Amino acid sequence: MPVNLNPPVLALPVAGVSLGFACANIKRENRKDLLVMELCAGAKVAGVFTTNRFCAAPVIVAKEHLAQADGIRALVINTGNANAGTGEQGLQDARATCDALAGLLGCKPNQILPYSTGVIMESLPVAKIAAGLPAAVANMVADNWLNAAEAIMTTDIVAKAISKQVVVDGVNITITGIAKGSGMIHPNMATMLGYIATDAGIAQPLLQQMVSDAANRSFNCITVDGDTSTNDALMLIATGKSALPEVNAADSAAYNTLLDAVSEVAIFLAQAIVRDGEGATKFITIAMEGGRDEAECKKIGYAIAHSPLVKTAFFASDPNLGRILAAIGYAGVEDLDVSALQLYLDDVLVAEKGGRAASYREEDGQRVMQQSDITIRVVLGRGAVSTTLWTCDFSYDYVKINASYRS
Amino acid sequence: MPVNLNPPVLALPVAGVSLGFACANIKRENRKDLLVMELCAGAKVAGVFTTNRFCAAPVIVAKEHLAQADGIRALVINTGNANAGTGEQGLQDARATCDALAGLLGCKPNQILPYSTGVIMESLPVAKIAAGLPAAVANMVADNWLNAAEAIMTTDIVAKAISKQVVVDGVNITITGIAKGSGMIHPNMATMLGYIATDAGIAQPLLQQMVSDAANRSFNCITVDGDTSTNDALMLIATGKSALPEVNAADSAAYNTLLDAVSEVAIFLAQAIVRDGEGATKFITIAMEGGRDEAECKKIGYAIAHSPLVKTAFFASDPNLGRILAAIGYAGVEDLDVSALQLYLDDVLVAEKGGRAASYREEDGQRVMQQSDITIRVVLGRGAVSTTLWTCDFSYDYVKINASYRS
Repeated sequence: MPVNLNPPVLALPVAGVSLGFACANIKRENRKDLLVMELCAGAKVAGVFTTNRFCAAPVIVAKEHLAQADGIRALVINTGNANAGTGEQGLQDARATCDALAGLLGCKPNQILPYSTGVIMESLPVAKIAAGLPAAVANMVADNWLNAAEAIMTTDIVAKAISKQVVVDGVNITITGIAKGSGMIHPNMATMLGYIATDAGIAQPLLQQMVSDAANRSFNCITVDGDTSTNDALMLIATGKSALPEVNAADSAAYNTLLDAVSEVAIFLAQAIVRDGEGATKFITIAMEGGRDEAECKKIGYAIAHSPLVKTAFFASDPNLGRILAAIGYAGVEDLDVSALQLYLDDVLVAEKGGRAASYREEDGQRVMQQSDITIRVVLGRGAVSTTLWTCDFSYDYVKINASYRS
Repeated sequence: MPVNLNPPVLALPVAGVSLGFACANIKRENRKDLLVMELCAGAKVAGVFTTNRFCAAPVIVAKEHLAQADGIRALVINTGNANAGTGEQGLQDARATCDALAGLLGCKPNQILPYSTGVIMESLPVAKIAAGLPAAVANMVADNWLNAAEAIMTTDIVAKAISKQVVVDGVNITITGIAKGSGMIHPNMATMLGYIATDAGIAQPLLQQMVSDAANRSFNCITVDGDTSTNDALMLIATGKSALPEVNAADSAAYNTLLDAVSEVAIFLAQAIVRDGEGATKFITIAMEGGRDEAECKKIGYAIAHSPLVKTAFFASDPNLGRILAAIGYAGVEDLDVSALQLYLDDVLVAEKGGRAASYREEDGQRVMQQSDITIRVVLGRGAVSTTLWTCDFSYDYVKINASYRS
């Protein structure tokens, strides 16, 4: 079960965004698996995408359509099939999906952005999607974010949605976000889809900067299994429907207030993905301190976060903490002086001077290990840079879920 | 159970090496957990060690003693405790172990090389080791390699030993090797200890080159879980007790014949470690072809080998082969043209032109997936370099073993 993560109960409408869903029977019957988000004229959209060289067909098409900049009017998302590793046919299928929705909405196909998530290397069932789109369009309303969050779930147990409101220059601004993902989660995106919308107006280049900055503070700091997916995307939509004048300067207070708020939403969603990590029973914060630069902090942090030996020890609530030292040691920081660093489990000093701390008692480690939220803190003693990552443990259920995903 | 790996039935004595073991109750009662290998005067020893910055105390001491070059006379190996992450005390404990054995054998402490494997960050029980050494020394005989292989096991299910004989310049040369390891297995060594001895005489610098070359062909091509251990070592011993004159030229036929034979022993032992990988049910060969250089072949090969999603799919015998494409895509080869590569499962062409091959049928993939030995072949179409790696799948039992290791 997800670690300290409850189903969302509230997600505020964002003026300028309507959402509709359908059960298109893409992989299973009677399950919401198709989502349409229609945007008002003039809405701006920016995004960051997977760096996987085998990126999915919809990622390629979405990037193309964003670059053509005819004004994006809708996003269409299906689950059950990733349309990845599908070659030329996959591109045709992603375009056919856009064609079908454009016909229904009366816009051009390149004003539609397509997204897919699910099994890789199987053909997208375009006919099922096209057949499902009219129902999704028919039920489009503004107050539909919770249904939308459910419609994009795959192996997620809990839907992920959150809203936040901030006052910018005296205007109340709403930000609502949804996300899905629980396996194949890695820095630089994951089998992760995230959609955040605000009624603030933000100029296009600034919007791109904002979504990149927010991703670096959130989705690029999580990992479940180290697999970087073919389909990841985080999209930020600014409808401009609020009374706030369009934000167009990166050094403005308005920009920074909005960036912080958008980042907060993104961090909640990113952490929610880890809390709902496949088979997760523990949520682990890895706080790196005293590094020379962010690169070495992340190198060591991810070595810890990706170690199956560390992750299974946390699953077992076993303070076999030498495994963390081993991961620090093989992270690839060549000149690391292991006798200068300190390892803490929450507030318990575990290791220093190259070995177990004199004050460390097994029962203290055991006590922290019983918690469902745990912080591993590594003080490197080399510099002043800090970085925080989030991950989860590795359980029987991870294997079970991923050994039976297609069946 | 180990994948197509039987317990060894024969391991030939090597003139100049005597082996003795004891049950020293280091972690458990009544289990062989202490091994002494005594070498004849004049025997040469070389080795390669873990690159982990948190390398264990015995690794530091063994390197020191090798560098002092007073002529190594014995190796001492304990299981049940790795003496890693133990700081200054750990160094004292490793030296005390050498002192104790030197007293029994009548040599200097720096003529002893110590090795430990087991739990990290717990103090080495030196008193138990010292108490066990007399029994080990008392039962030293040349024909004791199978007992030695058992004495170094930790989570290994099957002991690993092999012998090979080759004729060099008309002289029959014997090579016998043993190894242990099944978790924390990664390129650049693992929780892996390997000892190979030959009665050939090989000059010291050449012996170092030979053990490095053999490691690069064998132990540096395997991975179970991507964790690089604190304690890994592969040692090569040349006693010079055969009638063959000392080999002292790297371009000699004798050197190359011996290198090939030693490599063959090392490859068998390395593969045996993977076949006995923690929880392994399948042995997977990853054959990379058509790369520009070895670095990119290994980058992609290890991305596949380390992907938990790929490994769990193999455990399930599920040809969810898109996960392999995803791993290839995120391996970090920036300019990789995914439409130019081909993916085979044994002889079955699975993917080409950026997607599923037209000829691929699910039942063909399913058929290969039922096997216990499977080859993933990736033809990159970029150059002429090939590399082969070996790994195993990822099962419930991996989690079980590693969640309960200390209990």
